[in-house]
Parts: sequence; C-alpha cells; structure tokens
Amino acid sequence: MATIKDIAERLGIAVSTVSKGLNGANDISEEMRQLVLDTAVEMGYSSKKIRSRNTTKVCIFIEDRNMDYETIDQFGYELVMGFKLGAASRNWDVTTIPANLTVQTSEKYDSYMLGHGFAGAFLLGFTLHDDWIRQLHKTTVPTVLLDNYIPGNQNVGYVGTDSDEGITLAVNHLVAMGHKQIAFLNGSKNSMVSEERDVAFRKCMRENGIHPDPNLIAYGYYVPDCAKYHVPNFIEHHATAVVCASDLIASGVINELHQMGLKVPDDVSVIGYDDLPIAGQLSPKLTTIRQDRYDLGKSAALMLDGLIHGVSLSKLLLRAKFISRESTKRLD
Amino acid sequence: MATIKDIAERLGIAVSTVSKGLNGANDISEEMRQLVLDTAVEMGYSSKKIRSRNTTKVCIFIEDRNMDYETIDQFGYELVMGFKLGAASRNWDVTTIPANLTVQTSEKYDSYMLGHGFAGAFLLGFTLHDDWIRQLHKTTVPTVLLDNYIPGNQNVGYVGTDSDEGITLAVNHLVAMGHKQIAFLNGSKNSMVSEERDVAFRKCMRENGIHPDPNLIAYGYYVPDCAKYHVPNFIEHHATAVVCASDLIASGVINELHQMGLKVPDDVSVIGYDDLPIAGQLSPKLTTIRQDRYDLGKSAALMLDGLIHGVSLSKLLLRAKFISRESTKRLD
Repeated sequence: MATIKDIAERLGIAVSTVSKGLNGANDISEEMRQLVLDTAVEMGYSSKKIRSRNTTKVCIFIEDRNMDYETIDQFGYELVMGFKLGAASRNWDVTTIPANLTVQTSEKYDSYMLGHGFAGAFLLGFTLHDDWIRQLHKTTVPTVLLDNYIPGNQNVGYVGTDSDEGITLAVNHLVAMGHKQIAFLNGSKNSMVSEERDVAFRKCMRENGIHPDPNLIAYGYYVPDCAKYHVPNFIEHHATAVVCASDLIASGVINELHQMGLKVPDDVSVIGYDDLPIAGQLSPKLTTIRQDRYDLGKSAALMLDGLIHGVSLSKLLLRAKFISRESTKRLD
Repeated sequence: MATIKDIAERLGIAVSTVSKGLNGANDISEEMRQLVLDTAVEMGYSSKKIRSRNTTKVCIFIEDRNMDYETIDQFGYELVMGFKLGAASRNWDVTTIPANLTVQTSEKYDSYMLGHGFAGAFLLGFTLHDDWIRQLHKTTVPTVLLDNYIPGNQNVGYVGTDSDEGITLAVNHLVAMGHKQIAFLNGSKNSMVSEERDVAFRKCMRENGIHPDPNLIAYGYYVPDCAKYHVPNFIEHHATAVVCASDLIASGVINELHQMGLKVPDDVSVIGYDDLPIAGQLSPKLTTIRQDRYDLGKSAALMLDGLIHGVSLSKLLLRAKFISRESTKRLD
C-alpha cells in the first residue's frame, strides 16, 4: 500500500507538503491539497491512514433537495436517528452533512472522505444521476446507500425495505376486499425503488388474475401535489382503489378525491406507503405500508460496520409491514 | 404474554407439571412434555422465557442429507465456523445439530426450540419442502435461513450470495472471451437459488444480445455425477463453454469432457461456482464464482442478532466474486 513518500515521489514534491495536504493544513494552496488527496486516493493510501485512527469517524450525507430530515414528521429524521444509535453502540463519531450539488461538484467523493478522515458514509436521498453516485462505481471507501444499488463494487452496500413485499401487501389487501380496478400512483421515475415497485405492482396484479391496466399506473413525484395530475384520469378509468408510493402522495390523492366530491373510503380506497406520523393524522386515518426508518438507520450502521471490516455485504432488506387504519373499504 | 399459570389453567394440570414439561424433567411422560411445549408455544410463552436467560443459546441446524460440513473442503464447514465466530463475539452459546428427518418429524420446530431453550437458529441445507421449512411461515422463533426465503414472517431472515451478480460475472466473462454458445448446468430444481440463477442466466444472455438456447440449459444435482447426463447433449448442441452451479458439478463436467476426448479449456471453457478448496486442485485449475462462506456465516449471526432484538431483517445478500484461474479460454 502507498506511503506518504510514494505520493511525494509520484508528484515530485516534499513529503512535508504531502503531509500538509493530507492533514488539511492552511499553508498550501487549495489546488495542491486537492492534487495530494486525489493522488493519495488513486494510489490506495486512504484505507491505511484511516485504519490507524483510534476513533472511527463516519458521516451521513443527505442530498437535501430530495430528503427532509430535520423534524420527526419527515422521512429522513428517524433514519438519521437510527444510524446514530447504531453508530453510538460502536463508538463511532458521526457527522451529518447536507451534500448539495456544490459539495458534490467541488470535490471528488473519495478525496472528500480522505481529506476529512471519514472511514465510511451513509448516503441518503441521492438519485442515480448524482455526481457522487456515479463515482461510487469505483470508490474504495465503505459506503452504504439507502434505496440505491451499485453493481460490481464490493465497497458499496444497499439498505432498504423490500419493495416487492410492501406492494404485495397493499395489493393483496385490496384484492381481498373485492377491488380489481386498482390504480398505482408511483414516485419519481429514474429511481430504483420506483422501478422495483412498478414491477412488483404489475406482477402482484397478474398473480391475482388481474391484467394491470396501463391507464391506472402512473409515475408522479414524492409530493402531494402530483395527485391532481393523475387522480382524475384514474377515476375516469373506473379506479375503485389507489395504491400510493408515499403517505404524502396519498394525502394529495385523498385531497384531490375530496375536491372531486368523492369520499374515502366509501367511494375510493386509498393506501399509502412509509407510515410517516402524518398517516395517523389524515382524515380518514391512512392505511399504509410501514418502512421502519429507525431499523433502516440501524441496519445501515450494521452494514457499514461489515464493509469497514471487509465483509462484502451487498444488499440488506427489511420487511415491509401492513398498517391497517381507515382509508380502505370492502367493495360493495 | 402467557405465564406458566396460564398454561396450567388451559391444560387443567398443575403448575409444577407445566414447569417440568418446560424444563425437560424426566418424571413426566413424553406426551405430556410435548403437550406442555406445544401449548406454551401456541400461547406465546417462548420469547418471555428465553429473554430472561443470562446466556443466549442459539443453534445451527444442518440438514445433513443436503449439506456436508465436517471437513474444510466441504461447503458447510466455513459457514459453521463463520457463524461460530460471529456468535463468539456476541457471547452466544452455540450448539450444532444435524436435523435429519427424524428430528423434524418427532417434534414441531417451535416446541423443539422452546424445549431446548434456544433463542434462535441458523438453518443450513433445508429445501423448500422440509417439514420445518413449512412450519417457518408461522414460527415466533428468530431464524436465519441460508439460501431460502419465507414470505410474510418477520421472525425469519434469509442470507445468501447475490445469485444474479454471480451468474452475470460468469456469463459476462465468457461473452468477453468471444463465447456465445454458453451452456448452464444448474443445481437441483425446487431450490430458490437454482431458480434465481436460471432467471439470471437467461436475463444476462439476453442483455448480451444472445438468445438463450433451451438445449443448453439444464437442472442437475449438486454432485459431479450429474454431468454425464447433460454434457454430451450440450456438446451435441455446440456448446463452447459451460457455466456450472457448483465446483463439484464443474469437476464432473471437466471429467466428462475429458472422457469424450475434449480438452478444457482448449475445446470447451468451464466455470464453477462456490470456490471450494477443490477448485484450485482440479486440472485445469477452475475459474469460478466465489461465495465467501466465512462471511456468510458471520452475516447469519449478525442477522440473527437483529431478529432476536426485533429488527425485522428480511434479506441479506453478499457480493459474488469472480476468481480467475485456468479453465476458460478466448474462443478462436
């Protein structure tokens, strides 16, 4: 494995300059610091340095355009708390960093991690197209992604809730209540989880002997507002129930149905996804598929621990749970 | 949660008799002991009793018709060692039990676990049809299965190596070497892993623009001998390479090819699966897909720990690794 001397020789600079670059000293230029870090990463220096630390420093990166986490009613809150709990039991030092586009474009992922002495990271809210996600195909830094899978790199793991199980629970519940015209309002396209849920929905409908109607399947966004573009069309095509990819989407669907003069669940049944605190506060109270976000956070820490110790964990899925409330009804 | 008194009342017997049944005393009949245990399980007594123990007792059940584990060259050996390592770091007391048909038919799974005071188990070598596997749909005992998935029960988790990734690594390697007529000799039917690998093989062939030839795809068994039933047919249908579902199958395939006067890899390339010690001892040395069995065992312990503590882990997959040796060759 590369030493500081190797890096100095490769770059033709003094060992002391390399050392300053690696330790973030202020008396070298930003360009030189960056060059030292990038070279150190390229030469495989990172893990050696980080292994020699006494305290393991890890971080949570949150793409805050896509993931809210600051209050308990938001999806990311318990994820962060669960991860911190898992980290605490391992005596890790955790830093939470909003990783907006500026951070991602200013520095390479591996260089950032080495420069800050992080042994690993949990990444939340990144989509398949983010700069850093692209770099993860080659990273040497132990990294756990929520709801995103990177093929072929044993340093990267994926934690999530079993989408197939979640959608199956929702569809089977509605079918058991006599529904056949079941609509599915999905989340954003270009998301692995949305694609998995789409596949699961069609598969489960067919397993129940129902041909999935393309007019009743749509991609939206993870905000309530997306409902108004799709719900009228669902109703026009005789939907008697709507499965939603999040509780926020479901809240928009219920609102839109009310605007159209339809009652939930008397006229249309609605099922959410996630079981955010809002689910129990809606009117009617929302039947939903629970993702246990504390457990997801704890599982991410558990997975990161494995990756840091060279166990090449790839995928860790939690069970989805059916939470029965008041927003579905047997079809007359 | 049920108490000893509740069980006594339900059965109309003395508390002391229930206590004897639960603690395996000799001075009550076997039928009474069984009745007490089954009733205790039914009334949800198990977890309470087991939680109050100071030492966590867990066990490894091995269906020894299907899984050899006694010497280091056998598939189960490192699985058991890895699990024991993971257990040791958690101060668990581990018992290894060959669970043949007699054990499975003499007692219900949950009753057996309660009767022996086990807080959880790691099950190896069970197939989808074993009696106990069927009972796992309802078990309340934290249980981890190798290569087997039970839907809908949050007490049961599945650990394995990513079949899709493993088969994709093998097929992509052969395609990159110019092979198109690639055969796949799978393991036994009625196994979740065999089915996953079948799906993965066909998918990966299509992704490489090759229509999978049904004449080149067969289910066998996890023994070398199965090769002789399929290899002649593969060769008749112009196979230039054979992907095998285990190193043992691959050893049989190489042997059969040699019997037919064909050279490996000059005439036909062969890839194994597992990376057992035998892979490096074959002639030619076998290129294969590695399942890290120590890590699988350690991951099973990690998953069981989660399940015992109420984290409903469902699936934990490890990376498959491509191990390049001498049994494949570029197609001229």
